[in-house]
Amino acid sequence: MKSFFEARRIAVIGASREPGKVGNVIFRNLLKNDNLRCFPINPNADYVEGNKAFPDVLSIPFPVDMAIIAVPAKIVPEVLEQCGKKEIKNVVIISSGFNESGNLELTEKIEEISERYRIKIIGPNVLGIINPYKNMNASFFKEMPGKGNIAFISQSGAVGAAILDRALLNHFGLSAFISLGNMLQQDFLDALDYLEKDLYTEIIVLYIESLKPETGKDFVEICKRISKRKKIIAIKAGKTTEGEIAARTHTASLSSPSKIYSGAFKQAGIIEVNNLEEMFSLAEIFSKYKKLGKKVCIITNAGGLGVLAADSCVRAGLKLEEIPEMVLLELDKILPFGYSRRNPLDILGDALAERYEKVLKILSRRNIFDFFIVILSPQEMTQPLQTADLLVKTKIPIVACYIGGKSLQEAKKFLKEQGVIVIEDVSEIEILGKI
Amino acid sequence: MKSFFEARRIAVIGASREPGKVGNVIFRNLLKNDNLRCFPINPNADYVEGNKAFPDVLSIPFPVDMAIIAVPAKIVPEVLEQCGKKEIKNVVIISSGFNESGNLELTEKIEEISERYRIKIIGPNVLGIINPYKNMNASFFKEMPGKGNIAFISQSGAVGAAILDRALLNHFGLSAFISLGNMLQQDFLDALDYLEKDLYTEIIVLYIESLKPETGKDFVEICKRISKRKKIIAIKAGKTTEGEIAARTHTASLSSPSKIYSGAFKQAGIIEVNNLEEMFSLAEIFSKYKKLGKKVCIITNAGGLGVLAADSCVRAGLKLEEIPEMVLLELDKILPFGYSRRNPLDILGDALAERYEKVLKILSRRNIFDFFIVILSPQEMTQPLQTADLLVKTKIPIVACYIGGKSLQEAKKFLKEQGVIVIEDVSEIEILGKI
Repeated sequence: MKSFFEARRIAVIGASREPGKVGNVIFRNLLKNDNLRCFPINPNADYVEGNKAFPDVLSIPFPVDMAIIAVPAKIVPEVLEQCGKKEIKNVVIISSGFNESGNLELTEKIEEISERYRIKIIGPNVLGIINPYKNMNASFFKEMPGKGNIAFISQSGAVGAAILDRALLNHFGLSAFISLGNMLQQDFLDALDYLEKDLYTEIIVLYIESLKPETGKDFVEICKRISKRKKIIAIKAGKTTEGEIAARTHTASLSSPSKIYSGAFKQAGIIEVNNLEEMFSLAEIFSKYKKLGKKVCIITNAGGLGVLAADSCVRAGLKLEEIPEMVLLELDKILPFGYSRRNPLDILGDALAERYEKVLKILSRRNIFDFFIVILSPQEMTQPLQTADLLVKTKIPIVACYIGGKSLQEAKKFLKEQGVIVIEDVSEIEILGKI
Repeated sequence: MKSFFEARRIAVIGASREPGKVGNVIFRNLLKNDNLRCFPINPNADYVEGNKAFPDVLSIPFPVDMAIIAVPAKIVPEVLEQCGKKEIKNVVIISSGFNESGNLELTEKIEEISERYRIKIIGPNVLGIINPYKNMNASFFKEMPGKGNIAFISQSGAVGAAILDRALLNHFGLSAFISLGNMLQQDFLDALDYLEKDLYTEIIVLYIESLKPETGKDFVEICKRISKRKKIIAIKAGKTTEGEIAARTHTASLSSPSKIYSGAFKQAGIIEVNNLEEMFSLAEIFSKYKKLGKKVCIITNAGGLGVLAADSCVRAGLKLEEIPEMVLLELDKILPFGYSRRNPLDILGDALAERYEKVLKILSRRNIFDFFIVILSPQEMTQPLQTADLLVKTKIPIVACYIGGKSLQEAKKFLKEQGVIVIEDVSEIEILGKI
């Protein structure tokens, strides 16, 4: 799959002049990288976005490394055949309307052409592929995510779009995004093989509806190998019977009973999550901390939330390590009477940012705790932004837990922008058990 | 407890002139209601916020219905004694530093005074009480929530503040807010007794750390009675041993093993939730729909999310009712080839708002489904705001599920403002199983 990301001369078949059309968006996305040479294929246009259009790939007077196909399904065999003749070895078929819609004949046709010409195909029925480090956006998702260490492989294009949109909102950076669609040719194994070697990728997230049954064993093997060095997170859709039937009509593959998947994931060292929220949280945490440890200290300005957080920590298998008496004596000097004198450390409702800072300083001086959960709820004197500022600056491993609504929005946005792990509800602490 | 909310002449003991101080905030909050007569008690000031200050309640030349005490703990017995002499029967003690901090002697003192003068006490260690319908904000939470049918009773003041802040963000209206704190005198039974009779309250949400053991039986009885007509949702903090110990230092009460609570909740017709997110979601849904039914249709522009949603529906015990062939034939006419022709109904990635509208119209014409889950993920052509607009206008019971990030923020905000139920992740559908 590496060759897809290394393509420099790219033809977009179905590059439309009409803004908003899939073929137009893809072409414009690719044009943003000056190092790429992009050829619009459009028999009805002389120019697309200022670039000379060609009626077909065969008319391009240069070799072409990759073609992106965004034409109606019934024309795909014809243009794919032309790609073969042009000796284009990497093709992304964006178009839908193949086996997922019951069009088996059309599907077999493109399968046959791909085999005859030895064309590597991603798709059909995909959003495309993205690599921020190579500044390549060969998809119809409009915005390029930031650079990071998370790679997403999504069988569903739309789930992929939701993931990318969320990445933009929460400011987490990606190393690659691959939409696999119907997996006619390139599948999870190819994507994993590429990401195993990719130096930027440290976390791999898989949205799986179903694996090709014949690839199951290899999938487990390759993941077992990768998971020794990189984190793999997977979500399996279609775990219930209803979901399974829905998945079948969606990407045209049979999904097997969920227990088989869960077992295989475990064997392969894959961390399975149950929903998109968990998936995002875990990927975000891993992108910052490979390991957090089990010994945690909760610091809170709200006793009640400390209680709920303690519950979640216990459920997550974390250890609320005791604060030694010596440290408590130090805390006695700076905290007002009535503070909890234990972990979870309730530093009381009138805590300003400064109190959080002093407490974090004292508690982190000795190596008692692996990390800190810092809870803030909006009370009378609370300084959400100032406290966020100090959390951004601290070098201690922390997870910020801002619990409230309207008055915390700005501070939460700031924390996320600055790369601090923010969880939205104390119950989300339970996800830390999967690290 | 009704008498607290009906108070018209209110003394604020510790009404500070300094903006931001608790006593100042409370006084200003109360001043917003012109129908209340508010007396600041402050021996060091002539005027507070333009109102003549008194050195103590005994100097007020009028009868007083309620006093709010916001002075340091050690002065509380003295001012409470004065309240008794002044024959004030309702007192909210905001101040902390009593049994929750180990100050048992001080606690016993105020208990004795309250008994001697037959004073009803809310607190100590509370945020205060709020009633939007009476325009009364006798708390130090700055903003008044909107009017609605949800009443919150929170043992923890800070959790209460987080709840109120969240209510403002998500635009859900309240009928009452009561912070109970250490429950020296007024407890859950008193609050429930008031809310049972309150005509505006249809949903009661309880944040419980622990009930007084001697009130357990009465609690179950009153909830059993109320839950026949109103919904009661409860979250029990301190369900693990660690959490339990933390709760003990927080509001000074012994929490009993969690199983006892869960059993009692069930017996009492209380719906137990496991975290704040679930609590908010469920309260919001109930505030709009008392019953949703089990027969659901999922409409989605993203097949993959349809699969995940189907999984969640099954886990929630909902029924993905089949779409009859006759209705499918109607849908065939308006939907492009390749749509799923089954429930979950994948109306494909290029669905504009209009397609959602037509589909909802056809599907709701017969009474096949109790409600609809409308999933939207941001794809190339997607119209999040236009689609939101039609969802706001429709009279069919729907739950909107906008899955993405940056590009959906505005539309989600609009939906919430307009009172449409919005869930943030397909996994949240599982909460619908509790309805």
